[in-house]
Amino acid sequence: MKIALAQLNYTIGAFDENADKMIRSIQDARNQGARLVIFSELSVTGYPPLDLLEHKYFIEKTEQSVQNIIEHTKDIGVIFGSPIVNDEPKGKNLFNAAYFIFNRKILGIARKALLPTYDIFDEYRYFQPHEETEVIEFEGIRFGLTICEDLWYKQPLLTNFGKNKLYPYNPMDSMAGKHPDIIINIAASPFAYNHDEIKSAILTYNAEKYHLPVIYVNQAGAQTELIFDGGSRVVNRDGRVVRRMKNFSEDFILIDSDTSFNVPALNVNEEDDLIPKIHDALILGIKDYFGKMGFKSAVLGLSGGIDSSVTLVLAVEALGAENVRVLLMPSKYSSGHSVTDAVKLADNLGIQYDIISIKEIVEKFESSLKPVFKDLPEDIAEENVQARIRGTLLMAVSNKFGNILLNTSNKSEAAVGYGTLYGDMNGGLSVLGDVYKTDVFRLARYINRDTEVIPESVLTKPPSAELRPDQKDTDSLPDYELLDGILYRYIELRKSAGEIITDGFDEEIVNKVIRMVNINEYKRFQTPPILRVSSKAFGMGRRMPLVARY
Amino acid sequence: MKIALAQLNYTIGAFDENADKMIRSIQDARNQGARLVIFSELSVTGYPPLDLLEHKYFIEKTEQSVQNIIEHTKDIGVIFGSPIVNDEPKGKNLFNAAYFIFNRKILGIARKALLPTYDIFDEYRYFQPHEETEVIEFEGIRFGLTICEDLWYKQPLLTNFGKNKLYPYNPMDSMAGKHPDIIINIAASPFAYNHDEIKSAILTYNAEKYHLPVIYVNQAGAQTELIFDGGSRVVNRDGRVVRRMKNFSEDFILIDSDTSFNVPALNVNEEDDLIPKIHDALILGIKDYFGKMGFKSAVLGLSGGIDSSVTLVLAVEALGAENVRVLLMPSKYSSGHSVTDAVKLADNLGIQYDIISIKEIVEKFESSLKPVFKDLPEDIAEENVQARIRGTLLMAVSNKFGNILLNTSNKSEAAVGYGTLYGDMNGGLSVLGDVYKTDVFRLARYINRDTEVIPESVLTKPPSAELRPDQKDTDSLPDYELLDGILYRYIELRKSAGEIITDGFDEEIVNKVIRMVNINEYKRFQTPPILRVSSKAFGMGRRMPLVARY
Repeated sequence: MKIALAQLNYTIGAFDENADKMIRSIQDARNQGARLVIFSELSVTGYPPLDLLEHKYFIEKTEQSVQNIIEHTKDIGVIFGSPIVNDEPKGKNLFNAAYFIFNRKILGIARKALLPTYDIFDEYRYFQPHEETEVIEFEGIRFGLTICEDLWYKQPLLTNFGKNKLYPYNPMDSMAGKHPDIIINIAASPFAYNHDEIKSAILTYNAEKYHLPVIYVNQAGAQTELIFDGGSRVVNRDGRVVRRMKNFSEDFILIDSDTSFNVPALNVNEEDDLIPKIHDALILGIKDYFGKMGFKSAVLGLSGGIDSSVTLVLAVEALGAENVRVLLMPSKYSSGHSVTDAVKLADNLGIQYDIISIKEIVEKFESSLKPVFKDLPEDIAEENVQARIRGTLLMAVSNKFGNILLNTSNKSEAAVGYGTLYGDMNGGLSVLGDVYKTDVFRLARYINRDTEVIPESVLTKPPSAELRPDQKDTDSLPDYELLDGILYRYIELRKSAGEIITDGFDEEIVNKVIRMVNINEYKRFQTPPILRVSSKAFGMGRRMPLVARY
Repeated sequence: MKIALAQLNYTIGAFDENADKMIRSIQDARNQGARLVIFSELSVTGYPPLDLLEHKYFIEKTEQSVQNIIEHTKDIGVIFGSPIVNDEPKGKNLFNAAYFIFNRKILGIARKALLPTYDIFDEYRYFQPHEETEVIEFEGIRFGLTICEDLWYKQPLLTNFGKNKLYPYNPMDSMAGKHPDIIINIAASPFAYNHDEIKSAILTYNAEKYHLPVIYVNQAGAQTELIFDGGSRVVNRDGRVVRRMKNFSEDFILIDSDTSFNVPALNVNEEDDLIPKIHDALILGIKDYFGKMGFKSAVLGLSGGIDSSVTLVLAVEALGAENVRVLLMPSKYSSGHSVTDAVKLADNLGIQYDIISIKEIVEKFESSLKPVFKDLPEDIAEENVQARIRGTLLMAVSNKFGNILLNTSNKSEAAVGYGTLYGDMNGGLSVLGDVYKTDVFRLARYINRDTEVIPESVLTKPPSAELRPDQKDTDSLPDYELLDGILYRYIELRKSAGEIITDGFDEEIVNKVIRMVNINEYKRFQTPPILRVSSKAFGMGRRMPLVARY
């Protein structure tokens, strides 16, 4: 049997657009001789619809859209994902379901058994888990229909605390008892730079354990902070990957159940360099934020430093040079090379730039504040005024011309609160907020791999906020290699101060860094959405109390 | 048996402070002849500890603190709440548990069966539900030990979509089969202005159904946006409230199991005017945000309008006049009465105020932006510059003197995006962000109930942002009575446009308002924490996708 795998990019709540895409893929599949076409999890609504699922009208629209899709299944089998109402008097209102339709008839509905409720996932907020599994026979083949986490009974354990079995039972055990021939897994599994390998391992684990081929269909596309990377794949009954779809873009392939599981395994090394993956993920993240919001153009502040330079290059790759403009906003503390480096980069990229000195606005603020501040010495208050003037100028351009402001803060800064709220922390989207400073440098090197796009001096000068004379980041922060080593252990691995010190880091620095992370929760509370590329990003997947002592 | 109910205010993660408070209450209880003292849910850690629960060191500290408390239980029974590790190989890492200790021995541990995972609750993110119930006999009385939601098998249904039975079973049925004499319910149940009545109804429902008295012990105190209102109570076996502890503050009472359930029921009307409750809740919210963060003083911008006036009065009540200062920042569009009303209010309250005209800073911004804006007509960009200059001045004072900026936006504005990001939306805490404009007026009337604290003209002049000549809120928004009626139905009741129109609202206005709510998710994403006083506040309890079409 020819089976089509449709890896599409959905927009949450855009029912007609999502359905139209799916219907076009059904037609393509039919035209190419497929008997079955498979879409990803909650494809009808887009994933994750979050609290839209709590609105009756949203579910009514979902049901209409399902009907619309069903109408287009003449002579072809179609598997797609949708929330469905739980008719039982007890339990959550909805199931996270997979429809199996053929010729306008429902052959079966699978309901998700394992509901991820950790990190960025909140599925038990909306859905009732459903223990019974579904095997559907279609044209002589028995398809075991599963939804994403249903295959994740045995989880990878990324920290020193927890279990690798989060759920009380394994739905695949009952599924296996029903003797399926092929396991279908429709998914909405977001990108993290170390997650690709884990996904393959999970597919391999299930295929090997039950000696069944697995067809995994993911969505491709960003949903605010979450970047769904596609990478749908087919695993044979020995657990070897035999087909793999594109990363970070839509894709459509046909496989044949008679032959595709028997071809030689692909030579895939998921441990390939991670920087190109992060690079591609961020570009998709920018592109979809703008495209799905109906925005075309971006603005950002270009300081001559590494963060804004890398953000700019990514924005230009995502949106085109004609859709990105920058402001250069030197102060009396800006070094000459800041402006020349920024101008050089703007010229290299062929983008519009304007230079607005903030010197006189700073002076006007200082004289206005003088009656209140009197003769108190200059401190962080004056530094922040500069950052906030820049933030205000950028927002003025954003408001006047409709360019969305991109935030240029990196994860190291966001972690330790090295940034000004309502100043350089402004923006509609944070591009690098999940990328540590040391990786921002790696991204810059990767961008410059063929030609010097970002001026070399940007990569070699010591990082500085330039808010006071001769300021360097290392005045307030440890060296970035050291800082990022501590932050990664504290944030991603959730190690304690004691454990990080045991890893060989200096006690005083570790305690200082952890304290900075903890006391800056209030700043991160108000940051823009951050494109998630790691296993633990600031944002919806990391919920720390703001008022607390720890 | 004499039983002490200790309704305390905990700080999340402040193990020593929380334990010290509990140990003092144990001593008080012992001194007063009590045989048993009862604390609230997760009293050891404070509630909600959120993702701190995912850190091994946090749980280790929890266990040490539990040991410390157990050491102080000589000759007295103590019930308190704490997370405990789930030793099973499967399931979530923790249980949400209640310890029953006597004389340094564990008599029993109850594990929460029903884990709220909706609105502001995320318990299934951290905890494994536990079906088995715990009845513990102590000095001849059989205590049925439950934790908050365990009594909420039958839920109130506040919207038109959902079920009133969220869970697959009722732990109270199995509990009843074990023949307890008294039900203990340790809770962490946050305030919402309509929730007090619901709480009593739930207690009454259980008491009546199982013909058992219920002792309900809640925490009192705010945890960032959540305000726990205390109001612990004792319900007799007929479901009548016979004792009620203070709202919005710590309290400690003794009851006697021989006599207390037999006294006449209290004459409690939970439907009393809601405005005084909201008033008291907000003051507690401000007080605990500052107190638990270690801050003393606040600053805010006083415009002469109703929102900043009410915020100021609440701040003064919470922190004292000596700890609150304001900035008056008139522009060329400010009316004369704005400044005189603001000065009059500041004088009434006896607080420090400074006047900084923003006129010249505005001009400097405009001349700096001129080469970029050229001759484009003035629009929202220029209006926002004014708001952002004010935000920057306020943050400068905050940074210089250590006063935390209080945000003065109301829920109506936050809903429709009538506010400037990085301008008047700035602040460490939003005081009125869950209070509709019409209720802000009611709060002002309540504040003025005895004397004219807020100048009468503030309550009677038409609301205006004063960002352009003769601007009125009604230029862009429907009348607030109408607006709030639509917003309440859309946000709290989750009605669709169609349903709201059926309720008698104008179709065009309804569609316009709903559209404004939907497209302004991006602004609310970056707002400060909002003190929650309603059943559906912006913030952690309302998670709408930002990039979406609906």
